[in-house]
Amino acid sequence: MANVNGEITPAEEAKISILDRGFLYGDSVYEVFRTYNGIPFYYEEHFDRLEKSARLSMLNISQSREFLKEEIRRTAAACNIAEGEDIYCRYTITRGSGPVDLDPTLDLQSSYIIVVKQVPAWNPKFYSEGMKLAVPSIHRNTPKTLDPNIKGGNYLNNILAVGEAKKLGADDAVILSHDGYVTECSNSNIHFVFDGKIATPDQTAANLKGLTKQAIQIVCKDIGIDFAERDIKIDDVKKASECFVTSATREVMPVQQIRLESGETISFPVGGGPTTQKLAKSFHDFIISTTEKDRANALF
Amino acid sequence: MANVNGEITPAEEAKISILDRGFLYGDSVYEVFRTYNGIPFYYEEHFDRLEKSARLSMLNISQSREFLKEEIRRTAAACNIAEGEDIYCRYTITRGSGPVDLDPTLDLQSSYIIVVKQVPAWNPKFYSEGMKLAVPSIHRNTPKTLDPNIKGGNYLNNILAVGEAKKLGADDAVILSHDGYVTECSNSNIHFVFDGKIATPDQTAANLKGLTKQAIQIVCKDIGIDFAERDIKIDDVKKASECFVTSATREVMPVQQIRLESGETISFPVGGGPTTQKLAKSFHDFIISTTEKDRANALF
Repeated sequence: MANVNGEITPAEEAKISILDRGFLYGDSVYEVFRTYNGIPFYYEEHFDRLEKSARLSMLNISQSREFLKEEIRRTAAACNIAEGEDIYCRYTITRGSGPVDLDPTLDLQSSYIIVVKQVPAWNPKFYSEGMKLAVPSIHRNTPKTLDPNIKGGNYLNNILAVGEAKKLGADDAVILSHDGYVTECSNSNIHFVFDGKIATPDQTAANLKGLTKQAIQIVCKDIGIDFAERDIKIDDVKKASECFVTSATREVMPVQQIRLESGETISFPVGGGPTTQKLAKSFHDFIISTTEKDRANALF
Repeated sequence: MANVNGEITPAEEAKISILDRGFLYGDSVYEVFRTYNGIPFYYEEHFDRLEKSARLSMLNISQSREFLKEEIRRTAAACNIAEGEDIYCRYTITRGSGPVDLDPTLDLQSSYIIVVKQVPAWNPKFYSEGMKLAVPSIHRNTPKTLDPNIKGGNYLNNILAVGEAKKLGADDAVILSHDGYVTECSNSNIHFVFDGKIATPDQTAANLKGLTKQAIQIVCKDIGIDFAERDIKIDDVKKASECFVTSATREVMPVQQIRLESGETISFPVGGGPTTQKLAKSFHDFIISTTEKDRANALF
């Protein structure tokens, strides 16, 4: 089901004005979360990040967090979720409808769009074997042009990266900065294991500060795995023993190979190495215990 | 009036699916033209550029040019245009509706959206006095991240530039590349006069190959003004005697000042210097004579 400014309908029937800036310019911010036993994981953190994306985009959110939470609850309630099932929720705020004019300082009422559906199933082979990634020729947007920490409606950079990767036979792209540093995949953070220690690209490389990445850091501390954010040159990746990606809908997903621009392929353990597997389990346990403590935000 | 995949309604009532990639990801390409005596200026050239934007975005346009022209004609006909008036038309092709998935290689039917309205009037002071521009801190997207020659729905880079410029009291931004070269304004090409000769940023600097810019080049040749595309450092602009911008809806519009990042302001003749004024007149004559020869494409 979808909720467009208060009107709830099946998602396939939900529509937005063609004069909405979300459509005209991709001028919107959004978040995606899923529930566990009906409870959103990191709910407040998602709203915090939505507000950060909005701030970086000079976008005023007209709706309060409490109002949006209630609208999400109302949309989920319209979904007839079966006992024991969980939901995926994508909620978007656009700068609103107005004249066809780029100016972001116009005083507009922001639009909200909520989509709730069953948690989509990833290809099971992505867990049992791992994803195949390729490095595209396109570079990631930079913080000085379009900050990757704006989680919003301008996705063409990522889309073109995925397109190149698919044409190379891969499942997704691992995108580099203009100076050869690993940034992130098209919509997940990427991590490597070097000598039993986890390393993931730093904020100085252009990448979204993933909430799953932040949670992984806590879990690593708990279970005694060294975790560091630092600059990673794509050439350094040849020395990594394992690789995995993280996102809200994926949790921890192993990577089995990366195709470099040269055509050379770097391989990692099929189905994930020991550190990846241990972390995947501990991270899932962490989600369950964290959401259990947040029953006040249960959606059903 | 607007036409969304064949359905013509008043633009304010026209809607698009929230699952359309044009809304989800700004995953669309578009063109804007206006008519003169009912005839679109550079009609085929706009379609050529739409197809170029689509190619650069790996986007397949399902509709033929002839079909789109007929749909534009049908939309214009629904507008009840008064005798002697002209129209503005913005037509957009999106990658279509499908699963919420970045993959651009999915086989989707592209959507088309046509908006036709009266030619919007620019602030008359922009002609009688000139625009005020400011250099924002944000840089223009690069050809290696998001090619400015993709005229499409990912506009946040330009929007943030305009936002900064407005806060500095200017009307629009003149955006620099990361290495200090002038690229373009938020939705127009920029030109300078040095010693009576016109110079405009080269394609190596990130900017859209404007159709008005191309036409200006022809007119300059006709009237004996030297015209060159070349790299222009922002510091060189202090040596320019005149400045103007060009776009399909503006034609030639003078610039009266540019505020640099340092706060220093460069001034140009109010209302445009002699070269700008001569070119503005000759260019308008060129449009009228060019459209007169293209009566086969008349919309009304």
